[in-house]
Amino acid sequence: MSNIRHALQTRREDDFAAWYQEVIAAADMAEESGVRGCMVIKPWGFGIWERMQRLLDDRIKATGHDNAYFPLFIPLSNFEREAEHVEGFAKEMAVVTHHRLIAGPEGGLVPDPEAKLEEPLVVRPTSETIIGDAMARWVQSWRDLPLKLNQWANVVRWEMRTRMFLRTSEFLWQEGHTAHADAAEAKEHTLTMLEVYRAFADEDLSLAVVAGEKPENERFPGAVETWSIEAMMQDGKALQAGTSHYLGTNFAEASGIKYQSREGAESLAHTTSWGVSTRMVGGVIMTHGDDDGLRVPPRIAPWQVVILPMLREKPEDEALIEYCEGLRATLAAQTALGEPVRVLLDTKPGKAAAKRWDWVRKGAPVIVEVGGRDMENGVVSLLRRDALWDEATGKPDFATPTREIAGQTIPDILSDIQAGLLTAARERRDANITRGVSDFAEVEAHFSDVRYPGWVEVQWSKPTGAALDQVVERLKALKLTIRNVPMDAAPVDGPCIFTGDPAVERVLLAKAY
Amino acid sequence: MSNIRHALQTRREDDFAAWYQEVIAAADMAEESGVRGCMVIKPWGFGIWERMQRLLDDRIKATGHDNAYFPLFIPLSNFEREAEHVEGFAKEMAVVTHHRLIAGPEGGLVPDPEAKLEEPLVVRPTSETIIGDAMARWVQSWRDLPLKLNQWANVVRWEMRTRMFLRTSEFLWQEGHTAHADAAEAKEHTLTMLEVYRAFADEDLSLAVVAGEKPENERFPGAVETWSIEAMMQDGKALQAGTSHYLGTNFAEASGIKYQSREGAESLAHTTSWGVSTRMVGGVIMTHGDDDGLRVPPRIAPWQVVILPMLREKPEDEALIEYCEGLRATLAAQTALGEPVRVLLDTKPGKAAAKRWDWVRKGAPVIVEVGGRDMENGVVSLLRRDALWDEATGKPDFATPTREIAGQTIPDILSDIQAGLLTAARERRDANITRGVSDFAEVEAHFSDVRYPGWVEVQWSKPTGAALDQVVERLKALKLTIRNVPMDAAPVDGPCIFTGDPAVERVLLAKAY
Repeated sequence: MSNIRHALQTRREDDFAAWYQEVIAAADMAEESGVRGCMVIKPWGFGIWERMQRLLDDRIKATGHDNAYFPLFIPLSNFEREAEHVEGFAKEMAVVTHHRLIAGPEGGLVPDPEAKLEEPLVVRPTSETIIGDAMARWVQSWRDLPLKLNQWANVVRWEMRTRMFLRTSEFLWQEGHTAHADAAEAKEHTLTMLEVYRAFADEDLSLAVVAGEKPENERFPGAVETWSIEAMMQDGKALQAGTSHYLGTNFAEASGIKYQSREGAESLAHTTSWGVSTRMVGGVIMTHGDDDGLRVPPRIAPWQVVILPMLREKPEDEALIEYCEGLRATLAAQTALGEPVRVLLDTKPGKAAAKRWDWVRKGAPVIVEVGGRDMENGVVSLLRRDALWDEATGKPDFATPTREIAGQTIPDILSDIQAGLLTAARERRDANITRGVSDFAEVEAHFSDVRYPGWVEVQWSKPTGAALDQVVERLKALKLTIRNVPMDAAPVDGPCIFTGDPAVERVLLAKAY
Repeated sequence: MSNIRHALQTRREDDFAAWYQEVIAAADMAEESGVRGCMVIKPWGFGIWERMQRLLDDRIKATGHDNAYFPLFIPLSNFEREAEHVEGFAKEMAVVTHHRLIAGPEGGLVPDPEAKLEEPLVVRPTSETIIGDAMARWVQSWRDLPLKLNQWANVVRWEMRTRMFLRTSEFLWQEGHTAHADAAEAKEHTLTMLEVYRAFADEDLSLAVVAGEKPENERFPGAVETWSIEAMMQDGKALQAGTSHYLGTNFAEASGIKYQSREGAESLAHTTSWGVSTRMVGGVIMTHGDDDGLRVPPRIAPWQVVILPMLREKPEDEALIEYCEGLRATLAAQTALGEPVRVLLDTKPGKAAAKRWDWVRKGAPVIVEVGGRDMENGVVSLLRRDALWDEATGKPDFATPTREIAGQTIPDILSDIQAGLLTAARERRDANITRGVSDFAEVEAHFSDVRYPGWVEVQWSKPTGAALDQVVERLKALKLTIRNVPMDAAPVDGPCIFTGDPAVERVLLAKAY
């Protein structure tokens, strides 16, 4: 038994769901707003999202997309044109019906019956239909293609059960929308953006995701193909962290996105859409958090290094702050992971130990404490968030480099933490994917006997229609879903675990958020 | 009569309103969306807004604010707590009443009567009330103050008459919200943010604004003091480009933002709020646009330099592109106005002249054309958007520096354009503010006789209540409003132009957007 006294009350292994909520509160990331299903994203949580936005936006622009902005409201008639699409979203849409309030008969305000909209407006759950309308205006000739757009926006899906970051009625995301001349180019672009997401997830967020195609039953409403990146959380469940859809000509037909080809023929465009949302923040928490709180990968940490002078509200404080400022300036002038180091000198009032634990819970990658004795000795006390404890003593494992050495080595420590988190996520993922299961009974046994069963990779015959429905039902009984068909899976060998027919591909089965 | 054939059909002096719409279309900035009162912001328009966001966000963070995110929806009851506030917004609010759609009796979808919200939700027109709720949770002690937050968000005000960028039902903005221990600190912060806005408007957007306090009748609903920056458009009208409000304890009382002081007493916090929106883009158009389209100040230009090789779809194109790429790389490695130069090598298909005029209408600050002969001579053809025409010949005024000289001088040209636009805006503003008017009849004459009357500065006794209402009515008859009380106005001298009482301050009168 370890003698470490962790910074959180709940341990992951005791109650993962409660631990998740505790991390969000303890790291001061978000809270319930009092508005049904909507959260408030607090500065530390939002700062992480802002960093994600910046990094992903750079990647999206580097692949030739322009940002634009489309209306929040979608007229009902507009939404109705794509049958599967509206079917998929109608049950969870916020509907605006009035545009004015008046004093009610019993006091208070009520919607003014005189100000009822002729046609209700839906608060966008996603923007294919409204962006499709714009594309229909903008695309006339082959010269206008490809058209590659992206939007950062809030969207609303009226979820019945919500969980902060993972499933909220309003959430923030980017949604990319592109139009292409033909299916081949559009399909290729769908995969290009899937790879952008994979690289973003792995390189920036250290998530170690699995990219692959979703089965038919998990497609986006109206899509021909849906691809996803799936991340493994520490409880072994899967989190769909981003999706990329090839929409065929479905939305082009609904909106009338047509173009004249080089040869003069009129053709429908082929469109794609793809999105990543604030749920990714939940993925970061459940991948990297530990029993002391969050650990933020340095690339997305609002502050990568926090310097804490141990102030005593005495005149000596001034020299101590100056000593710390020297380190801050040294670090701020350097780069780590390709960007200037983000370093905070935290001189807010409060006890040094309390402040240290606040930053531990928030997951700042490197915490540097400096007391009077440190200053006398020309050193600092350095704590790596990814290696917090000295297992032998049960105490925080401070290193005490000189201030100069700290200034020189911290950028490398940040790179090391970023890489280490990815390695750990990858190893955990690989250790928790069970392969070589040849019988569905084995799947049943695995998911009922093992506490953190992780994922199971099986091979199947890719049934469709009623046969697929049957498979989905059998999985549902185990609370499992097919996550995706990994792009880099081994070749198939033998029969389908569900149908006994020859298998054609491998799929990942898992419980999921 | 000039022999210049301008790139737009409408001239500013012929029909300023039509010219404004034409610039927006010709520069490909935005368009009507088909959703009532909502526009689509197209990539060039959104790119300008993104640049504004980045620059203003840096300034907001530099003054100690954190970004956060609050819900789109506000419960009705929440909104009702501040009487003046709800009074100010109730007439123009989008109201969500249902959370599901079902098939209607006549086909199509209708809001599901079974899914009616118990309490309607308002789409935020501004977030004082919802952020006030959060502040009430977060502020307990004097140690929690000041609390300085900012949010970038979309808001909705159901406007009856809309105009792109200037007045749309949905618009994008930032709204800052802060809580302070006392009135003095909150008032000071209100002015700090006003100064942030002034510096942003002048230094980044070259707008030459006038900062000052709004009169009582123009205050934000619920505010104790409202300050604004006002910009003069080329038709002499005023545009309120940003506002900063001292809210006293009104919202603190409504939401219960209380703290325990150092001495242990419970006190209400004093709050501020301040916002700048996409209407600022309209201000940039009407300040810097000319009869050839938009002119974008370099600091906010998505592309500051556009290089156009005159391609002929022949093998020689390759060498020409390489020659242009040399200049692109040289420029991209340099800084202008403190940031890396944003330079685009535009090799899209299309005729060179047509592409040149597209970029002229979009207002790229520097356009560099390169033909085969330019390359042979080792030169480029350089056009400054702020000095497009050779008045003598009526043709575009190309300079032909060597490629090396162009690479060295363009960063300075960009600084020069930025400064020149500000100087021009300042001179136009100062030339069009009429002072020394001592009689209201003079005001009447000025605004009925002069075509572009600009602004008139008068002195007044700062009447309140019914006396102020009278002044407002007299001005309304002339379609005038009091814009603000300029902070740097000359001392008063003599009687109020409205009441004859001793004047106490100077105010600006103008027609306004």
